[in-house]
Amino acid sequence: MTSLQKAPGPSDLVEERSRGTFPVRNMTHFLDGSAKQTAIREKIMLQLERDPVWAVSDSHDLTLQQIRERSMAKVRRAAHFVANESMALFKLRMELISVVDPGTWTRIGVHYGLFFGALRGGATPEQFSYWAQKGAVTLNGMVGCFAMTEIGHGSNVAGLETTATYDEMSDEFVIHTPSLTATKWWIGGAAQTATHSVVFAQMIIKGKNYGVKNFIVQLRDTETFENLPGIVIGDIGAKMGRHGTDNGYIQFTHVRIPRSYMLMKHTKVNRRGEVKEPPLQQLTYGALIQGRVAMVVDSGAIAKKALTIAIRYAAIRRQFGASAGKPETKIIDYVIHQYRLMPLLAQAFAMHFTGIEVNRMYEELMDSMETLQPGDKGLGEVLEKLKEMHGTSAGLKAFSTWSTLNIIDQCRQACGGHGYSAYTGLASLYSDFAVHCTWEGDNTILSLQGGRYLIGCYREAKAGKKQAGGVAYLNNMDALLTKRCGAKSLADVSRLEVIEEAFWLVSAHVVKKAGEDFEAGVKKGLKEDESYEACSQARLLATKIHSIGYLFHRFKGALVRAPEDLKPILTRLCLLYGFYAIAENSGPFLQYGYFTPQQMDWIREAVTALCRDVRLDAIPLTDSFNYSDFMLNSPFGRADGDIYTAYFAAVQKAHKPGAVPSYFAKEIYPLLHRKLEEDDILELDEEDEE
Amino acid sequence: MTSLQKAPGPSDLVEERSRGTFPVRNMTHFLDGSAKQTAIREKIMLQLERDPVWAVSDSHDLTLQQIRERSMAKVRRAAHFVANESMALFKLRMELISVVDPGTWTRIGVHYGLFFGALRGGATPEQFSYWAQKGAVTLNGMVGCFAMTEIGHGSNVAGLETTATYDEMSDEFVIHTPSLTATKWWIGGAAQTATHSVVFAQMIIKGKNYGVKNFIVQLRDTETFENLPGIVIGDIGAKMGRHGTDNGYIQFTHVRIPRSYMLMKHTKVNRRGEVKEPPLQQLTYGALIQGRVAMVVDSGAIAKKALTIAIRYAAIRRQFGASAGKPETKIIDYVIHQYRLMPLLAQAFAMHFTGIEVNRMYEELMDSMETLQPGDKGLGEVLEKLKEMHGTSAGLKAFSTWSTLNIIDQCRQACGGHGYSAYTGLASLYSDFAVHCTWEGDNTILSLQGGRYLIGCYREAKAGKKQAGGVAYLNNMDALLTKRCGAKSLADVSRLEVIEEAFWLVSAHVVKKAGEDFEAGVKKGLKEDESYEACSQARLLATKIHSIGYLFHRFKGALVRAPEDLKPILTRLCLLYGFYAIAENSGPFLQYGYFTPQQMDWIREAVTALCRDVRLDAIPLTDSFNYSDFMLNSPFGRADGDIYTAYFAAVQKAHKPGAVPSYFAKEIYPLLHRKLEEDDILELDEEDEE
Repeated sequence: MTSLQKAPGPSDLVEERSRGTFPVRNMTHFLDGSAKQTAIREKIMLQLERDPVWAVSDSHDLTLQQIRERSMAKVRRAAHFVANESMALFKLRMELISVVDPGTWTRIGVHYGLFFGALRGGATPEQFSYWAQKGAVTLNGMVGCFAMTEIGHGSNVAGLETTATYDEMSDEFVIHTPSLTATKWWIGGAAQTATHSVVFAQMIIKGKNYGVKNFIVQLRDTETFENLPGIVIGDIGAKMGRHGTDNGYIQFTHVRIPRSYMLMKHTKVNRRGEVKEPPLQQLTYGALIQGRVAMVVDSGAIAKKALTIAIRYAAIRRQFGASAGKPETKIIDYVIHQYRLMPLLAQAFAMHFTGIEVNRMYEELMDSMETLQPGDKGLGEVLEKLKEMHGTSAGLKAFSTWSTLNIIDQCRQACGGHGYSAYTGLASLYSDFAVHCTWEGDNTILSLQGGRYLIGCYREAKAGKKQAGGVAYLNNMDALLTKRCGAKSLADVSRLEVIEEAFWLVSAHVVKKAGEDFEAGVKKGLKEDESYEACSQARLLATKIHSIGYLFHRFKGALVRAPEDLKPILTRLCLLYGFYAIAENSGPFLQYGYFTPQQMDWIREAVTALCRDVRLDAIPLTDSFNYSDFMLNSPFGRADGDIYTAYFAAVQKAHKPGAVPSYFAKEIYPLLHRKLEEDDILELDEEDEE
Repeated sequence: MTSLQKAPGPSDLVEERSRGTFPVRNMTHFLDGSAKQTAIREKIMLQLERDPVWAVSDSHDLTLQQIRERSMAKVRRAAHFVANESMALFKLRMELISVVDPGTWTRIGVHYGLFFGALRGGATPEQFSYWAQKGAVTLNGMVGCFAMTEIGHGSNVAGLETTATYDEMSDEFVIHTPSLTATKWWIGGAAQTATHSVVFAQMIIKGKNYGVKNFIVQLRDTETFENLPGIVIGDIGAKMGRHGTDNGYIQFTHVRIPRSYMLMKHTKVNRRGEVKEPPLQQLTYGALIQGRVAMVVDSGAIAKKALTIAIRYAAIRRQFGASAGKPETKIIDYVIHQYRLMPLLAQAFAMHFTGIEVNRMYEELMDSMETLQPGDKGLGEVLEKLKEMHGTSAGLKAFSTWSTLNIIDQCRQACGGHGYSAYTGLASLYSDFAVHCTWEGDNTILSLQGGRYLIGCYREAKAGKKQAGGVAYLNNMDALLTKRCGAKSLADVSRLEVIEEAFWLVSAHVVKKAGEDFEAGVKKGLKEDESYEACSQARLLATKIHSIGYLFHRFKGALVRAPEDLKPILTRLCLLYGFYAIAENSGPFLQYGYFTPQQMDWIREAVTALCRDVRLDAIPLTDSFNYSDFMLNSPFGRADGDIYTAYFAAVQKAHKPGAVPSYFAKEIYPLLHRKLEEDDILELDEEDEE
């Protein structure tokens, strides 16, 4: 092969790696938690890679039904591991499965996260063991799905229309879909996987509606897979992504189930139709948070995948620049390309550390909740923590998933034309990931919930109640609000403490603004809900700034625990994340006067300089994420940098060169060989008329 | 059908329409240009709708090959019209085809835009009539593609590797792909449509490289469609969107073509291999701008489609709110939902009017260029206009396509869970549209070009050369830069003139900053190119603010021409666009001191109030876009509002309810009926060892 130019490729990455300023393996261990954790992750990755069931290299050229069938085979494999490994290990396996195949992650998650979670959270011990015996743990005998959403009803669970009417005569509940809009919709696993379902329905007993409760309903015959009488299940058809998951709809027409199939850990119904409501309603919501935490963790994991692909490509791809005769310039060496990718790389680290922290908080909270009994001494404290977890995780879920969706698309665009190829993997990563912004709490609604929580904290703090955790900055607000950055130079401004204080101050201001708007509404005579509604925009901004700051603070917190040899690069990344976040949201930082216009110019300069610094370690940093080529499934992200050869080979393998399209005779030949209309003109002999 | 709640549906839109404050039909005429233009558009829409070839209702459930085949049939139809209608009419037809099927738009555009454009711009009259006779106008005989990009080379056309070496002996050029990275890649229409190609290649004569020129090369036998000897064409496989377009790769191995197949309108090569370069190099770039202008127009058209779907859905969908027993609240009535969609609706109007204006400028420029001869008196003026058109269209293409990509995704997210369904149409709209941000000039690179142009204007203005058109604000900069908004109240600030001045001032500041950064670099001893590179971030910001302001100014300009009965609503939209743009980019507006923090709070209040006002007309405004249900192809965008019925019917039609998956026996039955591993344990008899 002769070439007019130096062909870019493997040697470029070798050179990049030789220039790294930190020990890559140590970074991997630090990110994973320990060398032992890294070893476990690598074991799972190798298992996935070698198992033909998980083969992904041809994933871009499969039909929907092929994807579904393969995905089902993966569900079977997952069931094997669930029965044979610890919960912690299975959680880690799932985290990695999400990186390789988000559609299958969801298909497995529908049973083990949603269905099984509902069972664990809602079943009495005897109910739980009944369903466990039927196969709810191991899938031998049943697979569950989670029928909450209806075609006309989503976020507002209380507004669902499906009914479960108690028939005292037979001691049964009658499950019914009363209208088109009540059709259970978007039910993952319903179309082609599940035999059973948790059904959310309005419980009606003796004409009284007790609100939405959960019922287990068998959907299909486990021998024939046919819909049971009274049940109609259909496929809801093509969707944006996660093609491995089979979403369906379900309509129930007077379907009878035993009373004991209602999940009764909390609300109980006896033989006479008497209802006993639970003493501690709040504790039933704990399970909701699990999904949010998982999505914060997933946001970091997926961002790292996207960035590995885009950054490795940027270090290989050459374009423009340099002098005649010399090879073109690597695109990663352009100021603007560094500005496109390096801050996002820093953001991925911030999300990674936040994910670890939030996961830890969640595990601790769950431990205390599971051992807790009504009347316990520590109850107040746990409820306080639950409130914080609920409010914080709402905002974090929203802004982490939005951030990662943005990162994926920025990475795709940064790959130029090749970013539009399915083989790059970023287009499907985007389509697969996008639903995180919507399900288990639409991001906008969650942000507003987060804002409501912050307003509550603000009002408590104002009333003298000390705030803890991520909102502690609301405690000494008066002193905080008037602080100013005193930095007199770029060097002076470039400190983590400056960024930290800036976020505390601006967060306090935007939360205060939201709180004041709310209080002004109430004073004007609005009801509480109306006043919250009126200050929605301020609530959204408060949650946004608070959440971005929260990520920064977690990143800064992680620095303290970092080994010495990693501190310099992690500090640069942390500074870059903080300054970039400030520069991108410069409005409030100027509006509340923490920074002067001059300081803001320095911050922009600092971002450029930090991008240049971080760029030097860009390839080692992607290496430290430790995703194997199999996990990345993208020729553009290959660790060896031989991207063009790999890409060309992949395309050639999937499509035979020189093929004549099947519709040539039908659609192309007649076009090329047609007789033009103007060749055949009927000319009237109109001379007589003249 | 009984229902626990009032089923949302058609009556809601009837009510919405009854409340509109402006005559919808007049707005349609104004947007289209005249009542006559509206009639023509409606005629084309009806033609498309009734032609079975254009059927789109099942488009979400087709395989790639089915899409390709159908798309080819549409190409045939388009060829018919090209031969029988005016250029203006065909352009309008294409604009509407893009709304219905962007993939086919591209497949047609590859021939009629790219191949034919290259012929028109590059062929001598005798060459043009030769290729016209071969079928270049009517497609009977040939279909062309445009082989510019290579797998290793995109934006930097000068760096392409393919060679065209002149063989004096035979009077032929030899076209050759010298390396893997030189493989022509991403070539639209190459995989399954084209018989011929324009090939971009380095022209080498007697060992000397004259740079990249264009050559016509036949690729396939028109009788058999087989690749001609020396040519290998392959499919580059799955991509993110525009599935109707068949992108391919081409490798040439010493393929010979007559010398006369080189396009010689500009550079000429004679029989002896002597090269004559064109006197006016710049005029050859005019054609490049056409694609950009088309994309600005397309951005408006597609934004209107996405918004029609999301806004109509928002007026039907109900969720939360209201008191017990009453229907839930329409999501369009929430402050935050208005904030999500109404500013984007205003932005779509801004893009629409900008598209019209830019298109007009382009047509005028082309007219003057076509009649122009070297040495003409008006030459200087035309070149000046060409420069402005080039610089302005670069930034507008970038920020219009980015804005519309954002609008589509915001619309999708605003549809909640249903936004993730393919049937909503927004997922594919996104995937199809996304490539606009990359091709015919990557947006980031174009933004930097735009910034370079603005720096040039700034330096000219500083040197006393008067600037015209969109950069006239650079003329009296000293007086402008220190202006401050004097508004003392929300009412006072809410004027178009305030927004206009704000954009002039802030644009001037960011352009000046970029110019100063550039000059500082040069002073430090950097070469021009290096200095431009160093101030990339400032250039990008300058183009961004200038382009957003440009859209505002065009919108404000259109108001003047608007009929009186449309002025009130258009003014509200124009104010909303302006204020929203300022609020979203509040940093520079505060940094350069035009607005005080207090005024910025008023602006945010004004945005909320304007969102509420515009929301009242939201449905009539989507009606005024005048897209038929066929054009929208989304149950959620239906004009009659009967969205759930239509959605359910579409899904049921595509998928038979109750179907058992084809892989049940292979993958599901064995899972459900497997014997668990723990049932079969080999216990060692280890007593002996104890």
